[in-house]
This record gives sequence, structure tokens and C-alpha cells, in this order.
Amino acid sequence: MRVSFLGLGVMGYPMAGHLARAGHGVTVYNRTAARAEAWVTEHGGRRAMTPAEAAQDADVVLTCVGNDDDLRQVMLEGGALAAMRPGALYVDHTTVSAAIARELAAARGDVLVVDAPVSGGQAGAEKGALTIMCGGSPEAFAAAEPVLAAYARRVGHMGPAGSGQLTKMVNQIAIAGVLEGLAEAVHFALAAGLDAGSVFDVIGKGAAQSWQMDNRALTMAKGTFDFGFAVDWMRKDLGLVLDEAKRMGISLPATALVDQFYGDVQAMGGRRQDTSSLVRRFRG
Amino acid sequence: MRVSFLGLGVMGYPMAGHLARAGHGVTVYNRTAARAEAWVTEHGGRRAMTPAEAAQDADVVLTCVGNDDDLRQVMLEGGALAAMRPGALYVDHTTVSAAIARELAAARGDVLVVDAPVSGGQAGAEKGALTIMCGGSPEAFAAAEPVLAAYARRVGHMGPAGSGQLTKMVNQIAIAGVLEGLAEAVHFALAAGLDAGSVFDVIGKGAAQSWQMDNRALTMAKGTFDFGFAVDWMRKDLGLVLDEAKRMGISLPATALVDQFYGDVQAMGGRRQDTSSLVRRFRG
Repeated sequence: MRVSFLGLGVMGYPMAGHLARAGHGVTVYNRTAARAEAWVTEHGGRRAMTPAEAAQDADVVLTCVGNDDDLRQVMLEGGALAAMRPGALYVDHTTVSAAIARELAAARGDVLVVDAPVSGGQAGAEKGALTIMCGGSPEAFAAAEPVLAAYARRVGHMGPAGSGQLTKMVNQIAIAGVLEGLAEAVHFALAAGLDAGSVFDVIGKGAAQSWQMDNRALTMAKGTFDFGFAVDWMRKDLGLVLDEAKRMGISLPATALVDQFYGDVQAMGGRRQDTSSLVRRFRG
Repeated sequence: MRVSFLGLGVMGYPMAGHLARAGHGVTVYNRTAARAEAWVTEHGGRRAMTPAEAAQDADVVLTCVGNDDDLRQVMLEGGALAAMRPGALYVDHTTVSAAIARELAAARGDVLVVDAPVSGGQAGAEKGALTIMCGGSPEAFAAAEPVLAAYARRVGHMGPAGSGQLTKMVNQIAIAGVLEGLAEAVHFALAAGLDAGSVFDVIGKGAAQSWQMDNRALTMAKGTFDFGFAVDWMRKDLGLVLDEAKRMGISLPATALVDQFYGDVQAMGGRRQDTSSLVRRFRG
């Protein structure tokens, strides 16, 4: 199939690579042209000069950009959605608002549209082991699923347009609570003079267990954060969550608190550090 | 060995049973005599009329009572610690303050003392699969370990007297954060019209995963809480945590918030419900 991938960041670059390796003819577009050049040098395929040029002949268009504004710029102002041929498939991997996901799905009734935010981070993108949460019509999801297989470990159809984004928000809410609890647990353990390795070894198989405890408790205790998912991105995601919660008329008190705490970590210079740097509020 | 077990609640009753099955001669004491009678009818052994009578001839004395006051009443006012023979071992399984654990350890220099709170709940006690976090001298821990093997899946020596209690507190802090994040995640998912089963299936293997998500997300979505670890006990434990944090001069903002939220759940009639009933604050 003719596949166009727009947005070659730390996620999009390896994801587009997996599509090329899966045998698709891949056209790429990136705002910073040098990165698109590098991709074409590495994987072959073709570089488009504009989003609309990338979209116009494609069977499938995929985006993985920064936020709602970037997506609006590429797909609407940049003309990529309007340029797509009738019957083609559009998949967005950016974590954005449910509102823009619904807006894009409604904008072209003759294009299949799927909102498909991912989790698994840069490592998951590179290994082709992402979890992908999809929103859209059954027809759109059915068209997307075999394409996404190039870099997915799990793909779920969560409901109509916007449901992929809403599911990603559920994921981030759960992570925020786990990480704050773990940050306070690490802080308490160290303040009490306990050995973190022994503590998390003994409690790490029971009711307190989490992926974050398995993978981050000891690095939090050591104070190393130069890996993983950046605080700036988490704060962007929590902003989407809190906007959506306000729109729905519900309160998320701990999520709101953790969002503020990430503001403290940003002010401490932690913008590019892993989300586990939440513990720096306590330990510096 | 001659073993005396004081406190035959939902935890202590089956734990004492495991000690009898392991071949120890077990004497039991319980404030409500009928329960001790029932235990002796089921397991054999002997019933003592007072804590001191239970303690006086024992090689090992174990307690599993309600709180600091209960423990003080049984071991100090009730005379059990004073009645123990020199060189005997005393193990406390109650979740209590680190302060009383240290006080009991210091009260008799000629008795080996271990603070040994457990996790794993009633099911863990019945199956003999508890996690036991121990504080005390190396000699005391070495004496306790083979006795605890009767009902332990994991036993850790966490440091000097009080360290078992401090480790249990770390466990409860981590759980509080996980559960609040999960409660908000479930609340958001349902408010957004998502199917909870699909959501937690797709996100349940990634960075948001936790034991609580694996075991409680769907029951939270359904609103069933008639099992597990009761809110009243969790609130007791969080009270110990927050007292200790104040003593250490550290803040635990999310833990303090969750403690207050459990106050709401208690007021809603959730005192005996599982800790996952935290979601009732949002959903009634």
C-alpha cells in the first residue's frame, strides 16, 4: 500500500521505519526537512515537501506530531486531510484532545478516520511493541488494524471517534496516581533509614505492586531520571485529562495535584527527565 | 517448640492453625474466650486464661491484635512480656507504630523481639502465603524465621526494631496512591462512556499496570466491594503512616488526601468494604 507518515519525532521515525520494513511504499513528511532526508536515506521511500503533497496519493495517511495545534496545522491548515482521496484511511497517533479527534473524524465523511494514541514510549516504538488505543467506526478500525500490526503489540478498538484518546487519558490518570504513591513511598522509606532495595524486594509481589514499582522504585531511590517518558509530555497529557474532566463535569483531585507537582519538577529543571522524577519534589 | 499465640482474629486464627500443623505445641489466648475455645476444638493445643499465663512457659510468643492500645494492654498491662522466660522469642504481627515496636523491644533485654507486620490479607493468612516484614536484631530475626515459615511466602529482615512496621507503612503509602489513581481512572472511563473491561484489558500490561488494576479495576467499575481489606483497617494504617511522617518531619500530600477520602467512604457506610471502595467517593 501507499502509506504516508507525517511527523518523524522520536516515536514517528521508528514507526515509519516499521511500515517500510513491512513492505509498504512509504512517503514521509517532517517539519524539519533534514530529519525526513535522514529517514529516506535510511529506509528508502520518498520525501514530500508539504503535508498535502504527502497525503494526496496515499492509501493510508498517518500522523504523529506534538499536540492539538500541530495536528490542526498539518491536517487542516496544511491541507493534508482535504487532499486525501475518497475511501483512504487516516490514522492519528498523536496524544491530543478527544475534541480534535472527533473534529477530524467529522471533517471528511468519505475518509476512514481513526484516533490511535500509543503507549510504550520510544523503546516500544523502536521494538515495534506499542499498545495502540483506537477510536473510530468499525470500518475504519478494520482498515487500520493490519497497518498498525507493523509496530503494535496490542491494538484495541475502544469505541467511536475520540475513544482512543479517552482511553489514553485513563492510562495517564492511573500512572499519575501510581507514581505519586511510589514517590511518597520512596521518600518515606529513605527518610526512615530503610534500604530501598530490601523494601521493594519484599513488598514488590503484593497488593502494592505496579509496573512503576518494578521498573522505577530503585532508580527513584538513586535519583536517576535520564531515560523514559519526559515530564513535559506527561504534563501535556495531564492537561488534556483535566480539560476533558472539566468538560465532563467531574473532579480528579489526585490527578490535579500531581499535575501541579509536575509543575514543581519542571521548575526544578526536570522538564526532560522521566516521569519518576516526581520524587524530586521531596528529595531535590 | 512451645508456641503461644495471642489474638485469634481473621488473621491470627488461621496463622495459629498453621503453627499447629507445623508440629508446634500451641497455646492460644483470645479476649473473646469462645473463639479460643473454637480454635482448640479445631486444632487441639491448650487455651490460656490470661496473656501472662499464655506467655510464661512458651519458647515463642506471637501476637496479632488490633492496634497499639490492644498490644499495650496484652503485652505490658496484661503482663505477657514480663512473664516470658529469658531467652524466649517474641514476635508481633500487629500493624502498629514503630514507636511501640521499639518500646517492646527495649522492655526486656533478655527476650528476642521481632516486629513482623504482614501483608496478604485474610486469604494470605489462610493459605499460609503471607509477606512478613521484620524488624529486630539479627539474632532475633534468625530465631523467628523458621517459626514464620509456617505461614510465610516471603520473609524479609528490614533492619532494627521498628523496621518491619516502617516497611509495612511504605507498602500502605504505595497502595494509597495506586488506588486513588485507579479510582480516578475508573471514574473517568465510566464518565467518558468507555467499556471498563476493554480499557483495562488494553492498558493493563503497560506502564499503568498494578496489582490493584489487575485485581480491582473491574470490581470497582461494577461497584462491588464485599471482600478484601477493610477501609477501617486501611485508615488505621494511614493514621500510623501520617503520625510517623509528622514525627520524621516529612510531608506525604497524596497519602494525606487519600486518608481524608477514606473518611468520606466511612461516612458513606463503607467501613467494612474493601479499600477499592475509594471509587465510591465519585460514584456513590
